[in-house]
Amino acid sequence: MASEVAQRTLTEGQGEWSVYNKTRSTVSGEPLSKDELDKLTRYFHATMYLCLGMLYLKENPLLQEELKKDHIKPRLLGHWGSDAGQSFTYIHFNRMIKKYGLDAFVVSGPGHGAPGLISNFYLEGVWSETYPNVSENKEGMQRFFKQFSFPGGHGSHMTPEVVGSIHEGGELGYSLSHAFGAVFDNPKTIALTIVGDGESETGPLATSWHSNKFLNPIRDGCVLPILHLNGYKINNPTVLARIDEEELISLMRGYGWTPYVVAGHDLESMHQAMAATMETCVKEILKFQKEARDSGKAFRPKWPMIILRSPKGWTAPRKNNDGHYLEGFWRAHQVPLTKVLTNPEELKTLESWMHGYEPEKLFGKEGKLIPELRELAPTKGQRMSENPITNGGLLRQPLRLQNFREFGLKVDKPGVTMAPTMSTFAQFLYTIVRDNQETFRVMGPDETESNKLSKIYDAGKKVWVNGYLPEDEDGGNLSPDGRVMEMLSEHTVEGWLEGYILSGRHGLLNSYEPFVHIIDSMVNQHSKWIEKSLEVAWRQAVSSLNILLTSTVWRQDHNGFTHQDPGFLSVIVDKSPQVVRIYLPPDANCLLSTMDHCFRSTNYVNVIVADKQNHLQFLPMEAAVAHCTKGIGIWDWASNDAGAEPDVVIASAGDVMTQEALAATALLRQHFADVDVKVRFVNVVDLFKLIPHGYHPHGLTDREYTALFTADKPIVFAFHSYPWLVHRLTYNRPGQHLMHVRGYKEKGNINTPLELAIRNETDRFSLAILAIDNMKDRLGNRGAGAREKLVEQRIRAKNHAYETGMDVEEFTDWTWPY
Amino acid sequence: MASEVAQRTLTEGQGEWSVYNKTRSTVSGEPLSKDELDKLTRYFHATMYLCLGMLYLKENPLLQEELKKDHIKPRLLGHWGSDAGQSFTYIHFNRMIKKYGLDAFVVSGPGHGAPGLISNFYLEGVWSETYPNVSENKEGMQRFFKQFSFPGGHGSHMTPEVVGSIHEGGELGYSLSHAFGAVFDNPKTIALTIVGDGESETGPLATSWHSNKFLNPIRDGCVLPILHLNGYKINNPTVLARIDEEELISLMRGYGWTPYVVAGHDLESMHQAMAATMETCVKEILKFQKEARDSGKAFRPKWPMIILRSPKGWTAPRKNNDGHYLEGFWRAHQVPLTKVLTNPEELKTLESWMHGYEPEKLFGKEGKLIPELRELAPTKGQRMSENPITNGGLLRQPLRLQNFREFGLKVDKPGVTMAPTMSTFAQFLYTIVRDNQETFRVMGPDETESNKLSKIYDAGKKVWVNGYLPEDEDGGNLSPDGRVMEMLSEHTVEGWLEGYILSGRHGLLNSYEPFVHIIDSMVNQHSKWIEKSLEVAWRQAVSSLNILLTSTVWRQDHNGFTHQDPGFLSVIVDKSPQVVRIYLPPDANCLLSTMDHCFRSTNYVNVIVADKQNHLQFLPMEAAVAHCTKGIGIWDWASNDAGAEPDVVIASAGDVMTQEALAATALLRQHFADVDVKVRFVNVVDLFKLIPHGYHPHGLTDREYTALFTADKPIVFAFHSYPWLVHRLTYNRPGQHLMHVRGYKEKGNINTPLELAIRNETDRFSLAILAIDNMKDRLGNRGAGAREKLVEQRIRAKNHAYETGMDVEEFTDWTWPY
Repeated sequence: MASEVAQRTLTEGQGEWSVYNKTRSTVSGEPLSKDELDKLTRYFHATMYLCLGMLYLKENPLLQEELKKDHIKPRLLGHWGSDAGQSFTYIHFNRMIKKYGLDAFVVSGPGHGAPGLISNFYLEGVWSETYPNVSENKEGMQRFFKQFSFPGGHGSHMTPEVVGSIHEGGELGYSLSHAFGAVFDNPKTIALTIVGDGESETGPLATSWHSNKFLNPIRDGCVLPILHLNGYKINNPTVLARIDEEELISLMRGYGWTPYVVAGHDLESMHQAMAATMETCVKEILKFQKEARDSGKAFRPKWPMIILRSPKGWTAPRKNNDGHYLEGFWRAHQVPLTKVLTNPEELKTLESWMHGYEPEKLFGKEGKLIPELRELAPTKGQRMSENPITNGGLLRQPLRLQNFREFGLKVDKPGVTMAPTMSTFAQFLYTIVRDNQETFRVMGPDETESNKLSKIYDAGKKVWVNGYLPEDEDGGNLSPDGRVMEMLSEHTVEGWLEGYILSGRHGLLNSYEPFVHIIDSMVNQHSKWIEKSLEVAWRQAVSSLNILLTSTVWRQDHNGFTHQDPGFLSVIVDKSPQVVRIYLPPDANCLLSTMDHCFRSTNYVNVIVADKQNHLQFLPMEAAVAHCTKGIGIWDWASNDAGAEPDVVIASAGDVMTQEALAATALLRQHFADVDVKVRFVNVVDLFKLIPHGYHPHGLTDREYTALFTADKPIVFAFHSYPWLVHRLTYNRPGQHLMHVRGYKEKGNINTPLELAIRNETDRFSLAILAIDNMKDRLGNRGAGAREKLVEQRIRAKNHAYETGMDVEEFTDWTWPY
Repeated sequence: MASEVAQRTLTEGQGEWSVYNKTRSTVSGEPLSKDELDKLTRYFHATMYLCLGMLYLKENPLLQEELKKDHIKPRLLGHWGSDAGQSFTYIHFNRMIKKYGLDAFVVSGPGHGAPGLISNFYLEGVWSETYPNVSENKEGMQRFFKQFSFPGGHGSHMTPEVVGSIHEGGELGYSLSHAFGAVFDNPKTIALTIVGDGESETGPLATSWHSNKFLNPIRDGCVLPILHLNGYKINNPTVLARIDEEELISLMRGYGWTPYVVAGHDLESMHQAMAATMETCVKEILKFQKEARDSGKAFRPKWPMIILRSPKGWTAPRKNNDGHYLEGFWRAHQVPLTKVLTNPEELKTLESWMHGYEPEKLFGKEGKLIPELRELAPTKGQRMSENPITNGGLLRQPLRLQNFREFGLKVDKPGVTMAPTMSTFAQFLYTIVRDNQETFRVMGPDETESNKLSKIYDAGKKVWVNGYLPEDEDGGNLSPDGRVMEMLSEHTVEGWLEGYILSGRHGLLNSYEPFVHIIDSMVNQHSKWIEKSLEVAWRQAVSSLNILLTSTVWRQDHNGFTHQDPGFLSVIVDKSPQVVRIYLPPDANCLLSTMDHCFRSTNYVNVIVADKQNHLQFLPMEAAVAHCTKGIGIWDWASNDAGAEPDVVIASAGDVMTQEALAATALLRQHFADVDVKVRFVNVVDLFKLIPHGYHPHGLTDREYTALFTADKPIVFAFHSYPWLVHRLTYNRPGQHLMHVRGYKEKGNINTPLELAIRNETDRFSLAILAIDNMKDRLGNRGAGAREKLVEQRIRAKNHAYETGMDVEEFTDWTWPY
């Protein structure tokens, strides 16, 4: 079966330059004088020259000698495709900054096109101010070229080493959510945000256009998106570049934006079109803000955005030496001329291409941008590349925190009080929201109430600027001034939070545990950003990314198998030990202590796991603080090995697992009271305590570890997540062959809580049986009777669940009996 | 700072029922007769009654007795919010199936609203045909109610146990991509796809509307999306429900669809509106298909879709007993009346609500739908719930596969030939595409060419129905009949592939290794689907989900840190051993053998990791087949311990790591030739061979394991991914305290290949040094000299990279010297 293609050209034009034949612009007018036009063109050419230098040259930076193979980098790396469009955009926004005194910074979605912006950062001086050895002269320019995408130099994207960047753009999709996050509560700031047309196909980007529904024009700044359609991804046309323009405009209007088109390839007319369009957009932004701020009424303006159609690899030769399309085709995506090292013809092409920008007229003999062009960039203090928002630690102030101890639960006796862990924490969180109204936000994908955190709405409602209904009065908790942000897109809320903290503020993401896997990749990338930032001397510490996982696996018995996945921890442990932290507070007081610590910390990714239901409470506040400070410890009150070696160590990490482990401990002591079996109970809050010290700063030394777990006694470990993770952490510990871990092992469906535990052998009976089976030396034949009874109880629990849909009450109402 | 809300009502209306006050419809007309209308309403009521029964009742299914607490399930689980809208939609499409003889099935995005559809599946008989003990009578109905969301019963979503389902809808976002995947190459089929307005906020869903650009109306079927706006997520209004309708329509047009609105709450007029609209949509679909098929010209129609606005919890009481909004508000999301077990008033409310549907008139005394209503459903063979597409294994035919051996590389001597692994495989893959034009597709996020698989374009180009340009002739490789699908959305291509294989076909996803983390969660959920399907007797085996990871960490030296992440394997190993498989073929012939195996397999998630660059080739074809069949083995040609115990075992998994491990082996043998150090070389293809047999069917027994690795000799293991994963797999193996693993440990930036390895201590020098350090007993002081030389070589390699940007040639040109 073969289908014909119905149509071979787009509606926009015919022939070779079909899309770009003629410069088109929604806004008409020619605001630029001949002189301005000429200067803008030359400035633009200077950046293009620098881009090619970064890609190709290690020597002869000003092309003052004939270009030879020896001047070329031996390995050609970097991307050319979107450089021109990005630089073009940046230069035109610079003009607006100067004219209107704007406070702005840039986000580059297609971070691979970093040369387009880095060249600007160099020209306006910030690069050399930050890296003095890369000075504004011939030697500096040579270093500037060589270090790009070179071992020991810096990356080829908008990496942490790049000034003015909070968004690397290595993994695509998060430019808009990062930009919005950074302008929330920054009412003066505009985030100029370049969205690539490749990136625009990703899910995270596609939904993040809706961020405009969560932006309050009074208290927040603004994002000006430039959808940069250069037509191609790596090897394919892009979806948005090939739909009818009418459809594209409809899409952007549907997303709630006012789109302006600038399209073409002729530089002079493109300059005029972009200048007129940029100014229209900036004026509209300022008008909307004034309207909202003067009236005090928050509304959702149809904010402007620009659709910029410029050819892929713009200003490159139209065809390469082999006669294949280069400019305006995907072959211009990466290094445009690939054979300059082996093909003298191509080397010549490159040389004449670079000479075409007339470097000698731009940089003189010394290699410094000539003063009349230098004037085009904003002056010190206004340059986008030095906006302190892009080095948010400079702006960060510690949170105002109440004494978390005041929100603690009274625990007279451990293991007898049932109380709701999460809503206890919510009382503390409420004060944080209340006391940090300009610098703290809580994010979540529509689960904050379900996660029992709704108390915080008393201090900050849910941000909503998207139309109200009368019913909202009945517990809707919506407000344009809200401090809680809920959109059913883990990607968007995570992106907002990253942008918010990278620009110097604080926050918390709360999520159902299973669905945090949706943002594995984002958290990975943020961890990488932080790790690399730690190596960059001038980057100041930002608040930690705090991720609170609740509605956890053990209480997703009713939602079934799709909602049972504690595997996010397996992703996190692979990241740099300098960055990642994992906490499993067993009860409310421990959660309070842990969260207080996390909110004070910087430059970490803190993952905190705690369930939202009623749970047994174990530690009075001061004991909780002491326990969490150590991160791991023996619970003497639950142990009966005082002063002696235990027969078995029962260990736990996680709230539900701690309850089951404790119940197993009680069962063992009851069944073997006559032979005085010694049980030691160890609880782990800080998971990285388990790993040897050399592998993570929190890791215990072997001596410390053995003091808790012994080196020669069986250990039964009830673990919140997949059991193998504990083995991965303890694999080379003394006595690890005696470590027996139980955790979730993908045995789930619709269950009761206890039956779910039984299916995964993490229930009290299975744990006690496991301990008995590993104390054969100690118990001899005496274990058999107890074992049999435990098996019976387990069967009874299971059958009861199947028959009634409920757990046996004597088991669920269990409390610590000693 | 406090902002006022500018506007308190939407444009659509005022007052209590603002949005639904008046039934509105894009299509006018009243196609239903009074009799039809009456029957449709009663049929709809029957489904609503069943939904409530599922949520609440364990006894008294027909309410023939007064409703008592004892009849109520002790734990109230399930979701009511979207049930009505989903059932309403389904019933109206049934009408079209009967009228036009359509071939269709249903996808429920908001799978939590499963009762709305399951009630229909029961009414039309398929449930009882599949589960005979849940018969169409009073006893059956009671079982049907009780088993819903009950331990030992079935889940509360569209789980694998549910007939007619290929999409669970537990994790939101994939309804459209699954639906499109299922209709590709199924030209007769229509996927009725209900998209929730919560789901519509997710990134994956937001971009999957663009799937229409990849559907060929000649050879593919069609998706009819129903965007079901019931206004609320769990606790929040939804974005799309609160934007102006003009904006929403613009958005849908922008996505390339023709939207039709049906909005209201009055049942009779809603029936008329939906009937008229459904028929318009179906006629348009048939018209577009005819036009394309008659002309043979593939174009992209502006396919119809429906925006259905009905109240959340439609047909529930408007307010609950406490006077709070229920119907039309988020409180109707889950179980609508929550206190029926404790509050007799609420129990009464429930009873009279259920009686309001008049069950006695619907089901008679016996509990079977009365014949005049039964006639509304399609007849046997046409019911959506029995469409074999939803049990794709019924339709699946094995792939036509050439003998992969014919595509193998000639390897005369191991470890001396450099050849491109991936493009060798591409020759085989090309024949699979060629020979299975109707049943095999390759998916990828714009990386197939970059991943060196472009040979396959000769058999099947890239699917493109979205507008062509003349430049596309120059290597664009686009065609509406393509077999390769590339959109820069990992979510969309993965969703398409899942839908394609679940409906009985075959495929391959190829991705850059780092960015597969983007779909961690989707692969998780697919694994869970397969695992649960294995427990469902009537589900037939579907093709495995084959994920080929290339552009791997060790050759992302030039893209930098964001592109270095081999952690997908850490996610996969946590899934069920019945489902997941991981292969790391070390060379081209092994890749061919592995892929052949994967393409023949069913019901697995196969993850295959192999780099795309030129690599050393190790095994001739027959040796490769033998090696891959075993999955792990000693390479005798690389070992010198024949007949004796080795002094050290050098092991590897992964192509680049195998090269480095082999080079380390050679270094050891060279440096210690005089003392005759015995090195055994073990290579792992099938990663799960490492885990004990009891934990995974592929796992070796301890005896088999020890025969390879010994129980008492040091092992130096060069591993492709994070090193701890090997420890997690081997933690309780004999001799595991002597297992020393090196792998990627988050040490990266812009590097050369060798320097990247050095940073992570996986280079040949570091591996050899590690071996020396662990053979102190054997070597005594003799190791020191060799160690020093190796350290020097390592420094030289590193410095060379920093100075020149290149690796030392003698190291990169290294081949096996023995």
